[in-house]
Amino acid sequence: MAEATPVPKTCKVVMAETIAKNLLAEVKQTLEEMQNKGMPQPQLAAFLANDDPHAVKYAEWSKKTCEENGFKFDLRTVDKELLEDEIMSANQDSAVDGTIVYYPIFQSNPTHDKYIQETVALSKDVEGLCHTHLQNMYYNVRFLDPPANLKKSLLPCTPLAIVKILEYLQIYNSILPYGNRLFGKTITVINRSEVNGRPLAALLANDGATVYSVDITGVQVFTRGQGIKQPRHQVLDKEGWSVENCLPLSDVIISGVPSENYKVNTELIRDGAVCINFSSYRNFDGPAIKEKASIYVPSVGKVTIAVLLRNLLRLIDNRQPSEPPKTES
Amino acid sequence: MAEATPVPKTCKVVMAETIAKNLLAEVKQTLEEMQNKGMPQPQLAAFLANDDPHAVKYAEWSKKTCEENGFKFDLRTVDKELLEDEIMSANQDSAVDGTIVYYPIFQSNPTHDKYIQETVALSKDVEGLCHTHLQNMYYNVRFLDPPANLKKSLLPCTPLAIVKILEYLQIYNSILPYGNRLFGKTITVINRSEVNGRPLAALLANDGATVYSVDITGVQVFTRGQGIKQPRHQVLDKEGWSVENCLPLSDVIISGVPSENYKVNTELIRDGAVCINFSSYRNFDGPAIKEKASIYVPSVGKVTIAVLLRNLLRLIDNRQPSEPPKTES
Repeated sequence: MAEATPVPKTCKVVMAETIAKNLLAEVKQTLEEMQNKGMPQPQLAAFLANDDPHAVKYAEWSKKTCEENGFKFDLRTVDKELLEDEIMSANQDSAVDGTIVYYPIFQSNPTHDKYIQETVALSKDVEGLCHTHLQNMYYNVRFLDPPANLKKSLLPCTPLAIVKILEYLQIYNSILPYGNRLFGKTITVINRSEVNGRPLAALLANDGATVYSVDITGVQVFTRGQGIKQPRHQVLDKEGWSVENCLPLSDVIISGVPSENYKVNTELIRDGAVCINFSSYRNFDGPAIKEKASIYVPSVGKVTIAVLLRNLLRLIDNRQPSEPPKTES
Repeated sequence: MAEATPVPKTCKVVMAETIAKNLLAEVKQTLEEMQNKGMPQPQLAAFLANDDPHAVKYAEWSKKTCEENGFKFDLRTVDKELLEDEIMSANQDSAVDGTIVYYPIFQSNPTHDKYIQETVALSKDVEGLCHTHLQNMYYNVRFLDPPANLKKSLLPCTPLAIVKILEYLQIYNSILPYGNRLFGKTITVINRSEVNGRPLAALLANDGATVYSVDITGVQVFTRGQGIKQPRHQVLDKEGWSVENCLPLSDVIISGVPSENYKVNTELIRDGAVCINFSSYRNFDGPAIKEKASIYVPSVGKVTIAVLLRNLLRLIDNRQPSEPPKTES
């Protein structure tokens, strides 16, 4: 009996740029409609108060993408002790449509960064990091103004970018009802920061997935729960679990560990899993992961910037009291 | 020539209870006035979502003080994952006048505690930890409703308790104009947490002191600055400084390091300094400090609870739209 020839493993590598292109086309169309109505060119104020090379690079890259797509991008380099005053000025400045701040700033004191986040006015919070935006996300509340429901509540950019990537990759199954399109999927998210990993785990659980949320302190599982008023995820500690328990169970592995040395253990990844890296470093082992994964997305940054511009148009739209929203979720 | 007999060193030890008594008398009087008008007994909802023995002890102690002083105190022990929902229910409950949460809860993730703080409605934020209260404190803004200025902005309890202690000890010099009564004083604050040390340093600097703010990452100096709109402190890093540089310069040393092992080096303290401990542990070396300090306050907790009740009456007062505030700052 002849041995079966193994099917050659072919991993599809999907670049962020491909996915960003679709989102930017949508953004461009909305922008044109706005400009046909005589509305001014949208402007982002971006505050750089650290010298993190990743933040500097991301800022420069954002500026380029903004300007290529018809947005003004005003990069403001400020001393960290003056940042709060500068954000408050931007809150009052009607020429500024949205405010970005590059974190981390107060490295030794992450709660001070959270204080700064809260300084950005809700109406300019293009990053979706103000408490009201975050709380609405956790509670699966889509609008800022119930019951009229004309003003969309914004989602944080990187988590939303990853949702958009999963939609593009058809991990979201459009045969299932909206709001439950990840039902049956098991997803590991390695990173549980308040701006990226935790909101992402909650978003995916709110859409029906079982999500293992991993950080150095351990593993939590986020599942879709049923709250009193709205459907909302539930969180449980998985005592004694570590990432090694989660990887073999996962259809999708999303990693965002900000360290050059961290690598997801390829051997524990299920054959044919979908792997997405949102760290500035490569969390997956380049050549090996392509022998295991069915789809590999090595970075998400370009999608994040496209989502940022989409969020900015939402903010502008939210300020138009009489008109219904022009864009769909 | 006969040697001069040294004046015996006598350190005045001032107990928190003594200072709390004055504040509680003021609180009692305001409460009686309210009850004479037929207003209901004020109620605090206190959420305990950790098993930190200090938090448990502080909660029990708060309950006792509240009940002794005519306040309802509803201690609610909740699972940390349900805490957010419970706080939101209390926000909606007109029987609850103020909400306390015992921190830390998410020990491995202090920014999540900050998220929880922000969940408390401003109108129930008796601890003065919501962003609006904190930002007003940093910017030296006293009211929530300028220019009417009928609704007082609350200050966080422990920092305000320490201000009240410094007033009692006459470190605040009432000969100087209000708002500048610490002018000329040098104060070291060992602890720069977002809920205690940092707000305290800002409050003292806003009142005219030079404040060395110390934590494990280094020293910052807070001084009174002049902002565009309001007087506001300025913060500068003191490169290469440590607590050893600050102690010999300080008229007042205030320490709140939550560790059994941490002790302020008595030898470096100036003769006759004023020493205040706000840690649950003794940060000053008991017998030795009394040979150095002119005044020693070994704990502040009872003053903090008195300030909490005072803040609660402010919240209730802020809800009365037609009447001017009944209490003075």
